[in-house]
Amino acid sequence: MQFELTKEFLDEIRLAIDVNDFATVDERILDLHEADIADILDELNNAQAKVVYYRLSEELQADVLMELEEEVRERFIKSLTPTQIAEQLENLDSDDAVDILGELSQREQVEVIAEMEDDDAAELVDLLNYDEDTAGGLMQTEYIQARENWPVNRAVIELRRQAEEVDKVYTIYVVDAMDRLVGFLSLKSLLFASPKTAIGDICIRKNVISVPTGMDSEEVAKVMEKYNLVSVPVVSLQKKLVGRITIDDVVDVIKEEADKDFQMASGISEKVESNASVWRTSRARLPWLLIGLLGGILGAQVIGSFETTIGAVPALAFFIPLIAAMGGNVGVQSSAIVVQSIANGTSQFGSILSKVGKEALVGLLNGFICSVLIFLITFVLEDVTLGLTVSISLFTVIMFAAMFGTLVPLVLDKYKIDPALATGPFITTVNDVLGLFIYFMIGIMLYGI
Amino acid sequence: MQFELTKEFLDEIRLAIDVNDFATVDERILDLHEADIADILDELNNAQAKVVYYRLSEELQADVLMELEEEVRERFIKSLTPTQIAEQLENLDSDDAVDILGELSQREQVEVIAEMEDDDAAELVDLLNYDEDTAGGLMQTEYIQARENWPVNRAVIELRRQAEEVDKVYTIYVVDAMDRLVGFLSLKSLLFASPKTAIGDICIRKNVISVPTGMDSEEVAKVMEKYNLVSVPVVSLQKKLVGRITIDDVVDVIKEEADKDFQMASGISEKVESNASVWRTSRARLPWLLIGLLGGILGAQVIGSFETTIGAVPALAFFIPLIAAMGGNVGVQSSAIVVQSIANGTSQFGSILSKVGKEALVGLLNGFICSVLIFLITFVLEDVTLGLTVSISLFTVIMFAAMFGTLVPLVLDKYKIDPALATGPFITTVNDVLGLFIYFMIGIMLYGI
Repeated sequence: MQFELTKEFLDEIRLAIDVNDFATVDERILDLHEADIADILDELNNAQAKVVYYRLSEELQADVLMELEEEVRERFIKSLTPTQIAEQLENLDSDDAVDILGELSQREQVEVIAEMEDDDAAELVDLLNYDEDTAGGLMQTEYIQARENWPVNRAVIELRRQAEEVDKVYTIYVVDAMDRLVGFLSLKSLLFASPKTAIGDICIRKNVISVPTGMDSEEVAKVMEKYNLVSVPVVSLQKKLVGRITIDDVVDVIKEEADKDFQMASGISEKVESNASVWRTSRARLPWLLIGLLGGILGAQVIGSFETTIGAVPALAFFIPLIAAMGGNVGVQSSAIVVQSIANGTSQFGSILSKVGKEALVGLLNGFICSVLIFLITFVLEDVTLGLTVSISLFTVIMFAAMFGTLVPLVLDKYKIDPALATGPFITTVNDVLGLFIYFMIGIMLYGI
Repeated sequence: MQFELTKEFLDEIRLAIDVNDFATVDERILDLHEADIADILDELNNAQAKVVYYRLSEELQADVLMELEEEVRERFIKSLTPTQIAEQLENLDSDDAVDILGELSQREQVEVIAEMEDDDAAELVDLLNYDEDTAGGLMQTEYIQARENWPVNRAVIELRRQAEEVDKVYTIYVVDAMDRLVGFLSLKSLLFASPKTAIGDICIRKNVISVPTGMDSEEVAKVMEKYNLVSVPVVSLQKKLVGRITIDDVVDVIKEEADKDFQMASGISEKVESNASVWRTSRARLPWLLIGLLGGILGAQVIGSFETTIGAVPALAFFIPLIAAMGGNVGVQSSAIVVQSIANGTSQFGSILSKVGKEALVGLLNGFICSVLIFLITFVLEDVTLGLTVSISLFTVIMFAAMFGTLVPLVLDKYKIDPALATGPFITTVNDVLGLFIYFMIGIMLYGI
């Protein structure tokens, strides 16, 4: 049913390119879906990929270009002259064209824009002004609009002309004489309406959801998810319709956001692709490692200050990693849940107090189970006092970590700091150090040292 | 532009319900978007929510029902009689109706189905057979189809009739005389074609992407993402068209999948909502805590076996948490990147060897930086031998953790086990224990104990 890329297929294509057997290349590739062709190009070297690329129709070239892996696309674009880049951009939707333009240096941008037709160039220059992470940065200027005073038959003619430019039509936007968005029209209703009806009479004016150009792209994703939209109109400060955002672009935002939270929880501070350079990858991970290092040194200071205690009861040292690790684990669990519920917006009116209360109960329950287990084990392996010390400290550390893991992201969110910062190494490190302190204090009390 | 739910608004609605002021309720609520009405109902108690719900039109009731939070919807459905539930289900799309039916007990399902019209009931009974996590479980039976031999004008009449049942029309599926999917037709091309053309002549037969009923829902999400689809047709084993899946259902799958990976990395073993009960939440977190506990006990055994070493050089004990924590941190970082690249399918032909090689380089670089830093600090705080012991062990542990964190998820994936299992507590725990062992062995060598 779907095309599956195999090593044999790639070998065949590579061979065909090498011996200039273009008939085979055309036969094998031209009928495939753009996403599949892109997958093939991703695997070829730049020279081979270029051969295949220029055998595609112009329209297909544009579609394939946007499906390439980012790295491959950048390498490919870099190998083109400004005139060639300009040709490619003119076949793309404006949101895609501006993305590619945005990846070039300022000087290259100027060179490419100089090679484009005036209208297209002006449009792209406008779009370049928007921040990449806003509705303006995501939107495309290809959409279909009808005036509310047009009759259906005129609208069909006008829209047919507009539709040639627009790849996927989901909704027709209805504007007034000032280009302000007043409603929308489904293709369905247009298809089934009588020719003389005015568009204004069949368009839907209730609950017309739109987003302003300046809205953060994560917010846009939330709006589209909440209202189940496949496309959303973008309006300027004057309420004029200026573009639309389609769901496929927003799916990418949603995925990137989820990936970012996951990476932060794993101690990776910037978004890195798995194919980024060693140096970039190292740099993205180093900040959290240094925090971990600092935590370890603080931990060493804490343990050092209890050197005589350890001298008196060496077995206390055995359980240092257990106490440290459990505090970290519980803290990460609590914070992950809070971060996700903030990200998904599930906690609109849920008060902070009730969340903290629930985490306290969960901590109580899990802390109790773990403490009883560890008491039995240390009691068998060592003695009652050590058993009591370890289990009471473990219980305290778990309770504390659950509270801390819940409160920190909530507080960060309150002060508009990304709560995902709180997950992962930060929570782990703080809980490690505090857990050790609690552990030795309880040890001193119970052993009466 | 969009409705914003405030405490004042809720108070006003609650008061209006309490004094039976339905005019105010209607005025405030009836014109809102279904998603906003659902947000309001989520905040009301069951009795109040019911009052508002039954003031909505039947169609709006169905839309609002699907936008409620799962917990609120379940509570609400439980408070209805089988006849009332049957009425609600008949207004829903089949995929939503079957989701709600699936949440009921077998006995309740039978009672509700007995109250429904025969056709609707038969359809739902069919859909109930599909596993929830497959294409069959996600699909709805509301879609629009045209026969390839119909002329456009007949198709418009037929489709108008079908369209009454279907909420959002993205694509018209074209089938042959045996109901087998042969192509698709955009509303755009239908709108702009001449009346006598046969559907078969204007439909697109190239790259018709469809999914089989048995395909895993994550796979469906990947197909829709890859090919940028807003809806995908579902076909039976006989290639007959049986349903369609729309992007909004798949966005949920993508989000759930990302959430699940994040939760696994944070040591939460089953999917839990932030509003799940204390007991369920505890149970979801306990397995990883017990693994952590086991790791701690193994760690205690390792340290215990080096008791004489610690007796000779007590300062060695100070850096136990540092070594354990850093191994864990690095392992989690490496595994997170690998798990994400597997999940996103970015590593089709990337060989395992090149990934491991890259992680080794990153480990080398970060290990080197961290080791130099820790050597300088321990050298200042303590002495050269301790400095060398800690820094050499740290370097070894980081290198090892980077390798281990990369290999384990790759190996798990090779054996079709969810690689996300490898992230979080498992990697941390193993690296903790091994890190300690490496640390003390190096200590013994350098101190010549």
